Amino acid sequence: MTKAVPMTEIWRGDILESMHSGHAVVCNADGDIVHAWGDPDAIVLPRSSSKMIQALPLVESGAADAAGLSEQHLALACASHNGSAIHNDMVNAWLAAQGFGDEDLICGPQEPRDIGIRDALIRCNDPVCRVHNNCSGKHTGFLTLSKHLGAGGNYTDMDHPVQKAVLAAHEELTHETSTGYGIDGCSAPNHASTLKGMARAMAFYAAAREGNGTRETAAARLRTAMAKHPEYVAGEGRACTNLMRAMGHSVAIKTGAEAYFVAMLPEQKLGVALKIIDGATRASENALAAILVKLGVLDPKHPEAQKYLDAPIRNWDGLQTGVMRAASTLS
Amino acid sequence: MTKAVPMTEIWRGDILESMHSGHAVVCNADGDIVHAWGDPDAIVLPRSSSKMIQALPLVESGAADAAGLSEQHLALACASHNGSAIHNDMVNAWLAAQGFGDEDLICGPQEPRDIGIRDALIRCNDPVCRVHNNCSGKHTGFLTLSKHLGAGGNYTDMDHPVQKAVLAAHEELTHETSTGYGIDGCSAPNHASTLKGMARAMAFYAAAREGNGTRETAAARLRTAMAKHPEYVAGEGRACTNLMRAMGHSVAIKTGAEAYFVAMLPEQKLGVALKIIDGATRASENALAAILVKLGVLDPKHPEAQKYLDAPIRNWDGLQTGVMRAASTLS
Repeated sequence: MTKAVPMTEIWRGDILESMHSGHAVVCNADGDIVHAWGDPDAIVLPRSSSKMIQALPLVESGAADAAGLSEQHLALACASHNGSAIHNDMVNAWLAAQGFGDEDLICGPQEPRDIGIRDALIRCNDPVCRVHNNCSGKHTGFLTLSKHLGAGGNYTDMDHPVQKAVLAAHEELTHETSTGYGIDGCSAPNHASTLKGMARAMAFYAAAREGNGTRETAAARLRTAMAKHPEYVAGEGRACTNLMRAMGHSVAIKTGAEAYFVAMLPEQKLGVALKIIDGATRASENALAAILVKLGVLDPKHPEAQKYLDAPIRNWDGLQTGVMRAASTLS
Repeated sequence: MTKAVPMTEIWRGDILESMHSGHAVVCNADGDIVHAWGDPDAIVLPRSSSKMIQALPLVESGAADAAGLSEQHLALACASHNGSAIHNDMVNAWLAAQGFGDEDLICGPQEPRDIGIRDALIRCNDPVCRVHNNCSGKHTGFLTLSKHLGAGGNYTDMDHPVQKAVLAAHEELTHETSTGYGIDGCSAPNHASTLKGMARAMAFYAAAREGNGTRETAAARLRTAMAKHPEYVAGEGRACTNLMRAMGHSVAIKTGAEAYFVAMLPEQKLGVALKIIDGATRASENALAAILVKLGVLDPKHPEAQKYLDAPIRNWDGLQTGVMRAASTLS
């Protein structure tokens, strides 16, 4: 982690208050590095930035089509969502259609980020459910694949057919043998790889075209679903949703816990992987936005881009007390 | 910020997932550095770690005694509190006794950290108040001093007698001319200084004894109030409160936003100042705990110390997925 370079600066007045460093890699469709900051060989856990890889077997196997999943369902399978009504309602209906319920999800319950939904639960003394967990779409996808494969059992076990398929996809797309895994916030395994490996996998998604075989078709469908329906990938007020809208639905991006972030640029056939080494999401959002500007797909003057690029820091009284901006290394 | 050293590691399984670096200084009562990590001359904003300096004029001027403030009030004047009942009730009564109300506080409204209080506000559709702001004790102290001085007006203005007294105390105790200030989360000015300067100021508090003149007496009273009443300085579940209890009320410590932390060790007459450069509180809590162990005032086996030293990371389902621990540089 020692080779990380400064990426995001936090200013309060004219004082540099805090600073975030990281690693980032941009790969082309041949898997070659076209830009790199820090150490492209740093091994990290991509966390939720790997959700489109975790959802690949769902589509590739035919399970998604057998279950009649829409583009919105595919976006939700790749989501770290807010637990807003559109997310909760779709997960509940999807589970029911497959003959499952909240209790079949292996992710734990998580208070929804959506404040209106949170407050309604508190007012009604309703319990926080697993459906509200930001990963419930991914888990419903796992359940759908498990049922399609006739597998049963704990779909988060490493030797379960669902997780075997996820690991195979991860290693084939990163062109690496994963050096290990961690257990994610939702209890699913999450596979380590180099930043370079993840950027390579994202370049595959970026270059994938429907009709070019089963894998490319599945990858292209997931990427398109994310970019077309960004409200299902995260939700209102979130960087993934705001930035995909700001780029006119032409690029797919996905955040991950501990400040991972990836992007898939279909027109340029480029993949991006980024990790802020201290795990701060404010910085991964800022740094990814700066890289998207550099790659020519995000207009730095767009009001939604400004929220992340040159982000005002406000205090409890609404006064602007500082600003977050990308370090000169990224410009 | 470039000379910062690794301080806190975040592990998930056997993979190092994230890493925090920082600067820290320990000074003795003569103002000499006895330990240092990173750059002792790094200039940063101490944020709420300066609250016992911001409260010094309140006591030194005689305003605190004229208002009949208890030790608990003094602890609350130095607090970043949870907005629990003990905090809100004491601030409300203190304001009323001085002829003030919530509207006289200049800090903005902040949703209380205390989940029970938060949920009760939501259930009753009651507004979040300025009293709930974690800095409301400090602001009530400012109002009390302002009234005592017959000053009136906006007590957060840099040229107000209250803030002039705070700046004078800050510069005299740090032995530095502050290079600038930022506006804090609560709208009060916050003065920049080196880590070394803040450690020196904390060593003054550590060595101060009641009866040794007005300033030492005031500093000793504030330090003692914090250490004796840690539930007023932060609240249940918080590092300041838990660690001061774990040290048997013998040491005073205070967190600040953006991962500042200070400690005052009366027996050893040592002051500590610490900044994690990326601003992550999880790391400042871990690193401060490790330094307190190194200085011999915190038992690393104490269950409350363990929460910060070798802290299990759990997911939404309660599974332990990793651990946070201090880097070898601090041991």
